[in-house]
Amino acid sequence: MKKGYIQVYIGDGKGKTTAAIGLTIRAIGAGLKVAFFQFFKTGSSSEVKILKSFYPKIYYKNFGKKGFIKDQINEKTKNKVLQGWEELKELVKSRTYNIIVLDEISFALDWGIIGLKEFLDFLKNKPEDLEIIITGRSAPQELIEIADLVTEMKKIKHYYEKGIKARKGIEK
Amino acid sequence: MKKGYIQVYIGDGKGKTTAAIGLTIRAIGAGLKVAFFQFFKTGSSSEVKILKSFYPKIYYKNFGKKGFIKDQINEKTKNKVLQGWEELKELVKSRTYNIIVLDEISFALDWGIIGLKEFLDFLKNKPEDLEIIITGRSAPQELIEIADLVTEMKKIKHYYEKGIKARKGIEK
Repeated sequence: MKKGYIQVYIGDGKGKTTAAIGLTIRAIGAGLKVAFFQFFKTGSSSEVKILKSFYPKIYYKNFGKKGFIKDQINEKTKNKVLQGWEELKELVKSRTYNIIVLDEISFALDWGIIGLKEFLDFLKNKPEDLEIIITGRSAPQELIEIADLVTEMKKIKHYYEKGIKARKGIEK
Repeated sequence: MKKGYIQVYIGDGKGKTTAAIGLTIRAIGAGLKVAFFQFFKTGSSSEVKILKSFYPKIYYKNFGKKGFIKDQINEKTKNKVLQGWEELKELVKSRTYNIIVLDEISFALDWGIIGLKEFLDFLKNKPEDLEIIITGRSAPQELIEIADLVTEMKKIKHYYEKGIKARKGIEK
């Protein structure tokens, strides 16, 4: 790609991580290479083995453990997220990938694990031809401003409200 | 799966078809089988060859030609969409797939190619264990009511507005 953009997917509706997976699959179908970094997740979700099977077209790595509740975030999880952040910066320097997905990274901003200014500087200084995909529940205004594309996945209705739990192959 | 639900993804933002692709990849990672029916599309998008490579776990088929402008929809396209609709009804009877994706089918409802009542009846009478994923720009209220999950992909900003055209591996 000549020029890479910054895409942000936020909101309370289903479809953010799945859209990032879909983008990854489309990209490799066009011969692009994708690094898929997943934060606060264990890598146990059903799609992960498929993504990994495309290595080295897709480089998948997860940093964190299950759960998105702030009080459950301990030092170990924080350190994993920070490890991911350091690896990410090295990865960008390698110029190996056309697209980098930062799944759920906005939680690291929300919870002050990665500093907002540092993250924005990272985006501002990204290689011109690198596309970055960011997902999470919400995004600070400064991130929305710097992004080239923002979609809000808005929950109109969700079966969780009926008490249906996450299902293998659908949510996990 | 014990019980399948109806998921609907609408809105003017990027991420609907890509979310459907992501759901498909997650599902096959869990050993589920997915039929991916794409309406009003040529099947030339980069993800298609990846989806097809998973046959018979994924059965992909497209019905239509390029373009989502109502005035460009001619008899040939209408007939292709109707052919897809007939194939879909046969496919459901075969009980081969756990999930059926109906990408962009809501345009067929908007434009009266498939009757809304007929479509709603189809959903009401679907096999209990079949999950159906519907995407499109918008959905009639009756469809939202019958759906178990609805996400609106809302455009907050899009680089199309800066004059950037669809890119291979990203949008197509």
